[in-house]
Amino acid sequence: MSTNFYLTLVVITQSEKAIMFVLNRIKSSQNILKILTNSAKRQIEVHNSSLLLKKQVDNNLTIKICGESLKFPHVWLRDNCQCEHCFHSTAKSRTIDWTNFNINIVPQNVTEDGKTIEVTWEDGHKSKYGVDWLKFRRFTPDGQKNYTESIYKSKKETWRGDQFQDICSKHDYNEIIQSDEALHNWLEKLSIFGVALIQNTPDNEAAIDKVVEKIGFTRRTHYGVKFVVQHVVNTSNVAYLSNNLQMHIDLPYYEYCPGVNMLHCLVQTQSKGGENLLSDAYYVAEYIKQNHPKEYQLLTETEIEWSDIGVEDGNEFFKLHRAPVICLDMHGEVTRINFSIPQRGSFFPGPLENVQPWYKAHKLFYDLNHKFMARFKTNAGDILTFDNIRLLHGRNAYEDNNSNVRKLIGAYVDWDEIYSRLRCLKVKLKNQSGIY
Amino acid sequence: MSTNFYLTLVVITQSEKAIMFVLNRIKSSQNILKILTNSAKRQIEVHNSSLLLKKQVDNNLTIKICGESLKFPHVWLRDNCQCEHCFHSTAKSRTIDWTNFNINIVPQNVTEDGKTIEVTWEDGHKSKYGVDWLKFRRFTPDGQKNYTESIYKSKKETWRGDQFQDICSKHDYNEIIQSDEALHNWLEKLSIFGVALIQNTPDNEAAIDKVVEKIGFTRRTHYGVKFVVQHVVNTSNVAYLSNNLQMHIDLPYYEYCPGVNMLHCLVQTQSKGGENLLSDAYYVAEYIKQNHPKEYQLLTETEIEWSDIGVEDGNEFFKLHRAPVICLDMHGEVTRINFSIPQRGSFFPGPLENVQPWYKAHKLFYDLNHKFMARFKTNAGDILTFDNIRLLHGRNAYEDNNSNVRKLIGAYVDWDEIYSRLRCLKVKLKNQSGIY
Repeated sequence: MSTNFYLTLVVITQSEKAIMFVLNRIKSSQNILKILTNSAKRQIEVHNSSLLLKKQVDNNLTIKICGESLKFPHVWLRDNCQCEHCFHSTAKSRTIDWTNFNINIVPQNVTEDGKTIEVTWEDGHKSKYGVDWLKFRRFTPDGQKNYTESIYKSKKETWRGDQFQDICSKHDYNEIIQSDEALHNWLEKLSIFGVALIQNTPDNEAAIDKVVEKIGFTRRTHYGVKFVVQHVVNTSNVAYLSNNLQMHIDLPYYEYCPGVNMLHCLVQTQSKGGENLLSDAYYVAEYIKQNHPKEYQLLTETEIEWSDIGVEDGNEFFKLHRAPVICLDMHGEVTRINFSIPQRGSFFPGPLENVQPWYKAHKLFYDLNHKFMARFKTNAGDILTFDNIRLLHGRNAYEDNNSNVRKLIGAYVDWDEIYSRLRCLKVKLKNQSGIY
Repeated sequence: MSTNFYLTLVVITQSEKAIMFVLNRIKSSQNILKILTNSAKRQIEVHNSSLLLKKQVDNNLTIKICGESLKFPHVWLRDNCQCEHCFHSTAKSRTIDWTNFNINIVPQNVTEDGKTIEVTWEDGHKSKYGVDWLKFRRFTPDGQKNYTESIYKSKKETWRGDQFQDICSKHDYNEIIQSDEALHNWLEKLSIFGVALIQNTPDNEAAIDKVVEKIGFTRRTHYGVKFVVQHVVNTSNVAYLSNNLQMHIDLPYYEYCPGVNMLHCLVQTQSKGGENLLSDAYYVAEYIKQNHPKEYQLLTETEIEWSDIGVEDGNEFFKLHRAPVICLDMHGEVTRINFSIPQRGSFFPGPLENVQPWYKAHKLFYDLNHKFMARFKTNAGDILTFDNIRLLHGRNAYEDNNSNVRKLIGAYVDWDEIYSRLRCLKVKLKNQSGIY
């Protein structure tokens, strides 16, 4: 994508003396025909007088791109110099030695050639920046929102069980293996809605590996690199029983909890039951926030100790992790759900007076997830993929018989790897300049 | 460990009627010879009158263990019933169906036999609890502190570079492989101080695997299951160059950042340089909190975008993660450090006015980590193990020659696995009852 930008450079420096120096350099330069000097001068004066009123220094370079005045801090520009001394192009990494880095550096001269801005700093160092690159990093709310949603992470959309058939997209196994578009489409839907179904998977235990390899690699846990969900008598995990499996997330006792759960249905039960239960606990969290603020506070502020103690393949484990049921980030947005009746530990790491109110809030959370859950049954050949730290999942009781033993192969993949693959695919498919 | 407890049971229920019912049951029981009925009755009356004053219900069972009155909430006791219907002993998991769980349930009768408390609930269900088990889960500040530090996680101790020789414990490779005590000692020191040195490691690339297997397994990243640190010309990572490597944490662009870094020195450089630099950034965080509160706020509240873009073994990656330099948990305790000059992304996800102040705080953090760092040089046969999300590490420039090519083998292990192994070892070595 190539764009013609209309550019105006406005340099704001730390003192009037410096400003006049820069203005004189701008006026005398042959390289800046597109710069409207008078306009720039007027704007500088306006900025400067307002600065004097505020009795503080504006440490930004103002650049007009497509008619919009965009400010870029001097220190940020210097720190992100893209020249070969300051930036390693193969490692795509900053190589500036910060020992002597001057955070108060100011530009002495600024030029542009329509696509590139060149800044000469007071110590003589020269930095170049692509206009697309700068525009993509603009410090405006719309710019930051655009970058965030197009590159960082797509915005999630929550749902209720009665909307499940509409939001659960279906994807073909072979298309995902063969096509970047299909792979992107699956991962994008999975990141937005927290669930997506892959169909027509070959009938073998290794089939899921090919899907994982399109992303990167599995997330290993103490249950192994992959796991088999099948009825086991002396089990270290209640998921390996055939009775009702109440809705939960997997492995809440991991601080670094596996991000996505992939369950390949090799054999589905012919008996009654064996249905999947799925609930978007982010939806439930929103609902509780709006309708039960006191319970929301208890579920977001009361730490619970999640627990798993046992032996798998001869290796003992004793996992504990403390976190609320609804975890919030520093902006108050839900970032992870922890929920599991069997794997909620018996130690309650909070004050006595919180216990009864917390249990009331926990029961509300449990009931609302059941109220808003979806219920369906996968078929042999399906891989159900879902966000393990957002959705609760469960299963009805079922009965195996000699000729029909329900069997799933499971694998986890972390969101770090999925978002990484999504960004690589976006770069490849969109061909947008300025991303890096 | 076996202890004789002096026990008094005091039952506080929701109404005077229920209390009298329980009192009558207590009085008539043949199994409660050790219960001082008059004392219990008096205490119940005291509790009850204070409850009436507060106009609220006390939903706790009070049990006197070794002279200390300990309160346990009814709902918590019912939820943590240890009987075979409510708790799966192999999976060590709760199996209660919460669909019909009554959060307001009250006990009808309570008995004890010196080691066990038996509660009969109003619906007739009977629950048993070990006294050790209850005491270990008591809801008092000292009880919670004791459980937390003896089982959950040991308390960290911070240090300055001039204290490094005292706090950096040394461990023998073979002892760690052969002895539970040695393994426990190494991991405990590593968790408390964030650094420990393993010596006398055999001179082969697989030697580190045996250490990892004593814990569990490595944490795989897009750089592989293990990694080689050696000078590489066209690198995807500046760590694979031989010039100065500024202090950093590894992989801050991972939301789930590898917890512990293990670097086995196979060949050390004979040239000048190649020294390790290590700083306890938790100490620096404390120092900034006390001496530079404004900068502390900026470093804990300003999200930065950490970044790694490249290709490794033919696989593209594009990792981004947003988090402050100093990450705090919900109690305001430091929980993770993010820092890396090369892997700090060029997109700044905050408002313009934060940029210049944040850079000033960032420079302070950089300078203080250098001020308080330790400097030393590992030898061939050393495995330097350190907390990757707490310590900054770096390296001086060095020079390879044909007969001396510096070479390290690295592996990551997550704290989830390390704390899990530590708890298993504590259970084994301490032989303390009531843990589970």
